[in-house]
Parts: sequence; C-alpha cells; structure tokens
Amino acid sequence: MTNTQITLIQIDNYGPWTVTPEPRREVDLQTLQSRLYADLSQLVGNRDGYVFFTRFDNMVAVTNGLDMDDHALIQESVRNRYPVTVSFGVATGTSPVQALADATNLIQDAGSAQDKSRREILDGRVIEDEFRTDHDVQIAHFDVVDATGKYTDELDAFGAFIEIEQAYASLMRYMYEAHDSLSFFVGGDNIIAVCPDLDAPAYDDAIEHVREETGIPLRVGVGEGSTPHDAGYAAKHALEVGRAEASPVEFH
Amino acid sequence: MTNTQITLIQIDNYGPWTVTPEPRREVDLQTLQSRLYADLSQLVGNRDGYVFFTRFDNMVAVTNGLDMDDHALIQESVRNRYPVTVSFGVATGTSPVQALADATNLIQDAGSAQDKSRREILDGRVIEDEFRTDHDVQIAHFDVVDATGKYTDELDAFGAFIEIEQAYASLMRYMYEAHDSLSFFVGGDNIIAVCPDLDAPAYDDAIEHVREETGIPLRVGVGEGSTPHDAGYAAKHALEVGRAEASPVEFH
Amino acid sequence: MTNTQITLIQIDNYGPWTVTPEPRREVDLQTLQSRLYADLSQLVGNRDGYVFFTRFDNMVAVTNGLDMDDHALIQESVRNRYPVTVSFGVATGTSPVQALADATNLIQDAGSAQDKSRREILDGRVIEDEFRTDHDVQIAHFDVVDATGKYTDELDAFGAFIEIEQAYASLMRYMYEAHDSLSFFVGGDNIIAVCPDLDAPAYDDAIEHVREETGIPLRVGVGEGSTPHDAGYAAKHALEVGRAEASPVEFH
Amino acid sequence: MTNTQITLIQIDNYGPWTVTPEPRREVDLQTLQSRLYADLSQLVGNRDGYVFFTRFDNMVAVTNGLDMDDHALIQESVRNRYPVTVSFGVATGTSPVQALADATNLIQDAGSAQDKSRREILDGRVIEDEFRTDHDVQIAHFDVVDATGKYTDELDAFGAFIEIEQAYASLMRYMYEAHDSLSFFVGGDNIIAVCPDLDAPAYDDAIEHVREETGIPLRVGVGEGSTPHDAGYAAKHALEVGRAEASPVEFH
Ligand SMILES: Nc1nc2c(ncn2[C@@H]2O[C@H](COP(=O)(O)OP(=O)(O)OP(=O)(O)O)[C@@H](O)[C@H]2O)c(=O)[nH]1
Ligand SMILES: Nc1nc2c(ncn2[C@@H]2O[C@H](COP(=O)(O)OP(=O)(O)OP(=O)(O)O)[C@@H](O)[C@H]2O)c(=O)[nH]1
Ligand SMILES: Nc1nc2c(ncn2[C@@H]2O[C@H](COP(=O)(O)OP(=O)(O)OP(=O)(O)O)[C@@H](O)[C@H]2O)c(=O)[nH]1
Ligand SMILES: Nc1nc2c(ncn2[C@@H]2O[C@H](COP(=O)(O)OP(=O)(O)OP(=O)(O)O)[C@@H](O)[C@H]2O)c(=O)[nH]1
Ligand SMILES: [Ca+2]
Ligand SMILES: [Ca+2]
Ligand SMILES: [Ca+2]
Ligand SMILES: [Ca+2]
Repeated sequence: MTNTQITLIQIDNYGPWTVTPEPRREVDLQTLQSRLYADLSQLVGNRDGYVFFTRFDNMVAVTNGLDMDDHALIQESVRNRYPVTVSFGVATGTSPVQALADATNLIQDAGSAQDKSRREILDGRVIEDEFRTDHDVQIAHFDVVDATGKYTDELDAFGAFIEIEQAYASLMRYMYEAHDSLSFFVGGDNIIAVCPDLDAPAYDDAIEHVREETGIPLRVGVGEGSTPHDAGYAAKHALEVGRAEASPVEFH
Repeated sequence: MTNTQITLIQIDNYGPWTVTPEPRREVDLQTLQSRLYADLSQLVGNRDGYVFFTRFDNMVAVTNGLDMDDHALIQESVRNRYPVTVSFGVATGTSPVQALADATNLIQDAGSAQDKSRREILDGRVIEDEFRTDHDVQIAHFDVVDATGKYTDELDAFGAFIEIEQAYASLMRYMYEAHDSLSFFVGGDNIIAVCPDLDAPAYDDAIEHVREETGIPLRVGVGEGSTPHDAGYAAKHALEVGRAEASPVEFH
Repeated sequence: MTNTQITLIQIDNYGPWTVTPEPRREVDLQTLQSRLYADLSQLVGNRDGYVFFTRFDNMVAVTNGLDMDDHALIQESVRNRYPVTVSFGVATGTSPVQALADATNLIQDAGSAQDKSRREILDGRVIEDEFRTDHDVQIAHFDVVDATGKYTDELDAFGAFIEIEQAYASLMRYMYEAHDSLSFFVGGDNIIAVCPDLDAPAYDDAIEHVREETGIPLRVGVGEGSTPHDAGYAAKHALEVGRAEASPVEFH
Repeated sequence: MTNTQITLIQIDNYGPWTVTPEPRREVDLQTLQSRLYADLSQLVGNRDGYVFFTRFDNMVAVTNGLDMDDHALIQESVRNRYPVTVSFGVATGTSPVQALADATNLIQDAGSAQDKSRREILDGRVIEDEFRTDHDVQIAHFDVVDATGKYTDELDAFGAFIEIEQAYASLMRYMYEAHDSLSFFVGGDNIIAVCPDLDAPAYDDAIEHVREETGIPLRVGVGEGSTPHDAGYAAKHALEVGRAEASPVEFH
C-alpha cells in the first residue's frame, strides 16, 4: 500500500501582484516563475522529493522524506530571495488524488489565493519516520514511443507540440478519473505520474486509452520507493528496460 | 499586415544525453530545463523578444528586434554555461504558423534532434531594419474569467489544473487550425497567442469555441507593435480595460 | 573544543577550459562562477552548512552536518547542470586551518588542478554522528562599525572599497597566523571567520591588530553550534547585541 | 584618449533589510547577492558591458554601449524579480577613477545607502552615440604566472588564497593611486583593470611594484575597444600571446 505525502505550493496573492501598480513585463514574470520552480526543485529534490510546475502559481510536490521543519526552511528561503511568498498545505494518504485534495483544503480554509492578508500558510502533517516504508511512493514514468522520428523530426514544431499535448491531456484526465493518479508533463515527450498501488493491467489500460483517443503510443516504467526520487529513479530504469525489450509496461 | 519573426530553439541531442551513461536525476533535469528557459527569456527579453517554454527541449521564440548576431551571442552564452548546446532556426512571415514551420525546416534539414554530429545550427534570416514596422507583431493575452473564485479557491488543485488545461488545449488547437496562430500557456490561467492580423470577430469566434467545447469563459486583450514586448504590453493593458469594463475582447 | 569539518571545493581543470578553444566571454565566466557558488550555497546551506566563494575556482565550505553521500549528491547535481565538474576534499579537526590543509592534501594527492584526467575526486571523511557535539563549530561574524556613515556615503565607491578590502586583508592574515582561523569576506563590510575554540581576549587582540594596521574599527559577534548555521546565526544575534550595547566583542 | 562610462550600482537600504525583522540566514544572503550579480552580469554583458561584484552591495559596471533606457530596463527587471531594489549613478570621463567618483556623487547626493525613502535612483548621463570611438575603453587583464604550479597545487588552499589576495590588494591600490585605474578580482588568479590611456611602461611599473611588495609575478594583456567586451576580449587574446611568448606586458 502506498502512502503518498503531497504538498500543494501556492504563491500568495500572485494575480494582483502581477498587475500592481501596472502590468509587469511578461519576460520578468516568466523568469521569476521558472527560477522559483527551479529553486523549489533543488530544495525539495535535495531531500529526494519531486516538484512539478503544474500552473507555476500552484505547484504540486511529492514530499515523502521532508518534515515540517524542512518545509519551513524552504518557505523562509523563498521569502529571503523573492519578491513573493509561498503557502504550503501538506497531506498524506493511499490515494494521491485524495492527498492533494486534502492539502488544497488546508490552504483554501486559510483564505483565498488572492487574499492580501493570507501569507505563508504552513499547515498539515507529514508521515512520522516510524511509519515510513519502502512502498510509500509509486511513480510511473511515461514516454512517447519514437517521438523524435515521428514528430520532432517530421512535423512543424507546433504540430509536434500539439500531438504531445494531446497525449498528455488524455493521459492526465484518465489517470485522475480512473486510477486516482496525478500526472505531470515534465518536458520533451515525458509524463511522470504519482500513483496509488497500481498493477500492470491498470497501466496497460491507461496506455490503451490514450492510443484509442489520440493514436499516440506510450511506454511506461514503474518504480516504488520510500521517496519520490527512489521510486522515480527505479521507474527510469524500468523504462530503459522497456525500451530495450520493446515492452510497453515495465515494473522495476 | 503582420510580419512575425519566429525562432525555433532546440536542445541538441538532448534525449540521449538524459540517459547517458545512466538516467539522470529528474530534479536536475527539471532545474536545468527551467533555468535554461529563464536565461533565454532574459537574453531574448532584454531585446524585447518573447520565449515560450513549449516542450522545454523545443522552445518557440518571437524575435522581432533581434538580428543573427544577437542569436549567435545567445548560443555562445548557453554553450559557455550549460552542459548542453542549442540550435536556432529563424524564419519570418505574415503567418506565425508558417514562419514556425519554415524555422522548423531549417533545423530538420540540418539533421535529427538526436543526431550526435548536429550541433549549434544557426540558420535562417531576420527582418532587415528598414522593413520593420509598428504592425509586425500582434499578441493576444487570454485569461480565464474569475479563475480564482471558480477554480483555485473551489476545486482541488488538480481539478482546477484540469479545467485550465482543457481551456488551453481547446484554444491552442483552434487558434492553430482556424486562425494561423501559436498559443502558449504562460502560467496561472493565462495564455499568450502570437497571431497574424486578426480582427475582433476572430477573437470572439475563438472565445465562443472554447466556451462551447469546455464551458470555460475567456477574456482577451490584443496589442500590436514592432516587437513582442510592445505588442504584448499593449495586450496586457487592453486586458485590464476588458477586466474593468467586463468586455471579452479588447484591442489596445 | 571545536571539531570543524572543512570541504575544499575545486573546479576541475578550469583554467584550460576558460581559454579552450578560445578565450570565453568574461561575462559568461562571471555568471557561471557566481551561479555555481549560489547553487553550492543552497545545496550545502539546505543542510545547515556554509560555503565561501574564496577564489571561485577554489571554494571553502564548512560542512558539519553533511555526510559523504550528501557530498556525492552535490557533485552529481553540478555535473548534471554545468559544463564543468568539481572535486571535494573533506577533513576535520580542532584547527580549521589544519583541517583545510588536510582537505587540500587529499585533492593535491589525486593530481593537479589542471590535470585533464583528474575529475570529481571525492575523498576524506566526516565526523560520525555519535561524535558530533554542540561545540563543534565556532563562527565569528565581524563587521565594520558605521561603514555607511564613514565610507559608503562619504568616499567614492572605490575608495570605500579599498578601506574595506584593507580591513579584510589585515584581519584574514592575522586570524590565520595568530589564531588558526579562516576568514572570508561575505559582502558589504562583513567578514565571517571559522575559528577554533577562541576566547574574548583573542578577538580583542584581532580587532586591536586591525585598528593599528589600518585604522578601521571592527565589531564581532561570536557563536557556537553543531552546524555552521547554528553557530553563525548565534553569531549574528551576538553582533546585534554588540551593536545595541556598543560593545566590540560579544559572545552568544 | 579613453572615455570610460562607469555605473555605480547600489542595493537600496540593504544593511537594514538584512537584519529586519531578524537577521536573515547567511546562505540566503549569499545566494541573493551572487544571483543578483550573475543577473546584472548577463543583462549588462548582453550589451557588451562588464559588471564587477566589488562589495556585492555596491557593484561597479563599465557600461559603454548602454544608454539610460537600458539602465532603466535593468532596474525594472531587478525590481520585478528580487526582494530588493537598486540605484544607478552613471558618469563618464577620461579617468575611470574620476568617472566612478562622479557616479558615486550622484547617488550620495540623493540620500544615504541606508535611507528608507531613497529608492531606485537613476541619474547621470551616457556618451552620445555620435561621440563614441573605438578607443573609449582600455581594459587590462592581469594574471599570476603559474599560479597552479606555485600555489594551488603546492600550498594549502587558504595559503594560496592569501598569496593571490596580497597580489590583488597591492595591485588594486597601486593602479588606483598611480594610474587612475580601477582593478577588480574576477576569480582564480585573474584581475581585470579598467584604465585610462596607459602605455607599456605604466604596466611594467605596476607589475614591478607588485613583485617588489609581494614577490608575486604578474603578466598582463591589454586591449582597447568601443565597449568593455571588445576591449576585454582583445586583452584576453593579448594575454594568450604573452603566455606563449613569456612576455609580461602585451598589447593587442
Ligand atoms: N524530463 C525528462 N525528459 C526526458 C527524459 N528523457 C528524455 N526526455 C525528453 O524526451 C525527449 C525525447 O527523447 P526520447 O524519449 O529519448 O526520444 P524518442 O525519439 O521518443 O525515442 P524513444 O523514447 O527511445 O522511443 C528529449 O528531448 C527530452 O526532452 C527524462 O528522463 N526526463
Ligand atoms: N504569465 C502571467 N500570468 C499572470 C498574469 N496575470 C495573472 N497571471 C496568473 O493568473 C493567475 C490568476 O490571476 P488573475 O487572472 O488575476 O485572477 P482571476 O481570479 O482569474 O481574476 P480575473 O482574471 O480578474 O477574472 C495568477 O495567479 C497568475 O498565475 C500575467 O500578466 N502573466
Ligand atoms: N553577508 C552579509 N552582509 C551583511 C549582513 N548585514 C549587513 N551586511 C552588509 O553590510 C553592509 C553595511 O551594513 P551595516 O553593517 O548594517 O551598516 P553600517 O553602516 O556599517 O552600520 P553598523 O554596522 O550598524 O555600524 C550592507 O550593505 C550589507 O552589504 C549580513 O548579515 N551578512
Ligand atoms: N575570470 C577569469 N578567470 C580565469 C580566466 N582564465 C583563467 N582564470 C582563472 O585562473 C585560474 C588559474 O588558471 P591559469 O591562469 O590558466 O593557470 P596558471 O597555473 O596560473 O598558468 P599560467 O597563467 O598559464 O601561468 C583558473 O582556475 C581560473 O579560475 C579568465 O579568462 N577569466
Ligand atoms: Ca520518447
Ligand atoms: Ca483570470
Ligand atoms: Ca557595519
Ligand atoms: Ca595564471
């Protein structure tokens, strides 16, 4: 049984900030957002967690291995180096979808995303060390088969992008509704999903769904671990095995 | 009439690099990608251009105002500071879609995205200064009406994300097929489109299409200029007017 | 008794790289160096260590609290995101000067700083958890009294800089020779020293020495802890007390 | 005759900020300072200027090629992405020392570095395009002869650092007093000086002075150009010639 620890990261009162006193230069907003994401990735990743950029103003992290003090330190580091602050809601559970819903509630209960007086919420709880196991996190690393040959080298860059985007849209919705999983585009043709305790037929089913809906063939490697990095790294190795053996679903 | 200058940015041989000699830590790839994007944003933005992260290994830039020397300098700066290199294809035209297709061809003709010997392509041409006008670039800044109240503060974070993603997927495909435009998600609930010379009914049509397909109400501000920043900044001001006057389509 | 754990960080074969195949743009080298330093600062600082930029190609870190796996992870993160790699030598001891000398030996024994085949050395040993104490690290935070009023607001910027630089040069040599301490300029008018178990008269002596040699009045706050951050943060608070009470030497 | 354009960059009210409401974590300050420096380096360097970190809270830039609008854009970009703001004073002249003094005056006249209400000063003037020439900037790139063999691979890392530091301290003071030049340590064993129209004997004299005072042998390459990058890049090439021909002073 998995026990995923999810942190919702929300920039405080960001919408109003972007247009006060006047709209801010878009390139500066893009730089701010992507650097903040990169910093969070390093700070969380340094303790074997994962952060996904999602909408950039709302990011989703898998934080098995980080305690509340680690969260507080990251919050402080952002405050010390950025013109904005961040709120964290932390929740755990066997279903990643439910954990994220609970984490969201913690932040929503404290006020609106555009509430001037709601700042640096740090709420929720982590899995105590004694209850952590090697099966807490299941990560699936999905990849489009031969994206370079079929799309990148063949179509115009936006046409290729639309194909990948369609595969992503189809997979993320299906995994959410049918399999209680959170799927995130991570660049190129790669999608990483945070899953409950799924078996091979569940992944076959998802890949089949995407092929039917979009015609795009996916492959997936699946791994487990006590942290997102351990699970994700096992998933990457499984994906390499899948590539070598032309198998669509590979468990580590 | 617009004359958009588009640059396709492609990381050279990136797929193989990510798994050689072994899969690399995902958080490092995420950091590398988002920092490279941030740097390109600043380097291009410093000359009033825009870069969109797209798939991260393939990024699309609007570069009216940059010449080939500026491109070469950016290429050199990446080579000097990253473990990867980038190729640039540059093309211009009244249709952003066609310009990107031409830019893509320049890179594809030089070799595959996963070709070891294809490095740092710098090909294409820019608009000569004497031919540049104040109407070269049209930018549309789309925004979901009341995303905070309806999604961010109401749904769980992934549910909200799916809504925004659906609006984006619907808009980007429709603008590409019906209106020769390239649309990019830029974080939050915002989408920026690079358009040919479109009029108000075209934007009404696109907004109507998204509402029918997804139920999500969009608003748009439109601006023109000789550079992406000028056009985009005008679009942002128009969007503010639209917000104040509750009008769905506003031209600057 | 202190037990300082020092890590020498050396960029591998950096000199030749800066001029191969041709001299690289200085601004790119400056950016590379300062970003690498910033990243190391965060990665080490996230585990309560300190890094000093020193010469940038050779940096000194105080790493009580980090084990060899933490060092390996940082080395991997640099390799994955920069065009250069780094070597680490780690040593411990009651004298910071001796610990750094030992750490240096480990790297020198493995080859020259400009040896093409010497890459990513990771050698030495850390303090085992069971032997760590709350007195392992002593940090002194030195500060020029009223630098703003006497220099920054009065002299031309280079004249002010020369004054601060002189104070630093005088202090760093004296603390090294007379008190077995490593002192680093950290910006503004601040100098942080990593010290063995020094008492108040030793600090009085050092401040007196700098005043005699340069005429510049210093103040210092001193703290101890099991990690550099704990010691350094206590030192900062002591310095604030010194400011409030106009006392030149304050222990936490 | 040179005509150097110097910009003094000062972080506004930075001292008080570092301790309000409590002292901030040193690693965050180090990261903030070095990233801000890296960003300024890229933004100014992208237009062929140079920035030196100096004291980090006060940085010196050579900005031939940038106009006041370029300065304003950089100021805006910092405000949009950092928790601090910066002031700029800009002045020009045949003597870099005098130009920096004038630039400093502009900022000092507007208020103290620790004045809460003094923010984002942007004062001074640049060289009009029609008056710019290929001899406006003279840059000297100094380097310690065989620093690796004599210091880095031989002494302990702090001992080596003290040697380099001594050479720097000696050179920077002498060039300032005797030759109206601003010299900056740029990492490793390298020092870059911004000079008026100096001839070879002046450089011989400076190198001789440092050898007498410290025993450390320097070499220098000198270049001229209309921008810092052009002059500095020529200086780097001259230094390579000096290395090849074992000559201490080389003009491009
Ligand atoms: N985030 C992330 N992206 C990756 C990783 N591996 C590859 N990519 C991305 O995926 C793109 C395509 O690479 P591949 O998937 O290796 O290429 P392909 O042509 O689809 O070939 P096969 O997947 O082997 O069929 C690259 O440009 C990267 O952007 C990874 O581990 N993480
Ligand atoms: N990239 C980018 N994102 C923006 C900008 N303005 C707002 N956003 C994003 O949009 C999110 C939502 O903010 P708003 O659009 O202001 O909020 P809203 O609740 O939808 O309200 P209205 O748009 O006024 O109806 C913010 O959190 C930001 O992420 C912008 O100019 N550029
Ligand atoms: N690295 C670092 N630099 C600091 C810190 N506090 C202040 N500074 C730097 O020191 C500079 C001067 O600030 P202060 O020391 O507060 O000012 P002062 O005029 O000398 O006043 P007093 O020290 O109170 O006499 C600032 O601009 C900063 O660059 C700190 O905690 N760490
Ligand atoms: N900022 C900067 N630093 C450099 C440059 N070239 C070398 N360095 C630094 O100088 C250090 C020593 O390299 P070198 O000067 O090549 O080595 P050396 O042993 O002194 O040999 P010679 O100078 O050839 O006698 C490197 O580690 C770098 O930190 C440069 O162009 N710019
Ligand atoms: Ca693939
Ligand atoms: Ca909105
Ligand atoms: Ca002070
Ligand atoms: Ca040298």
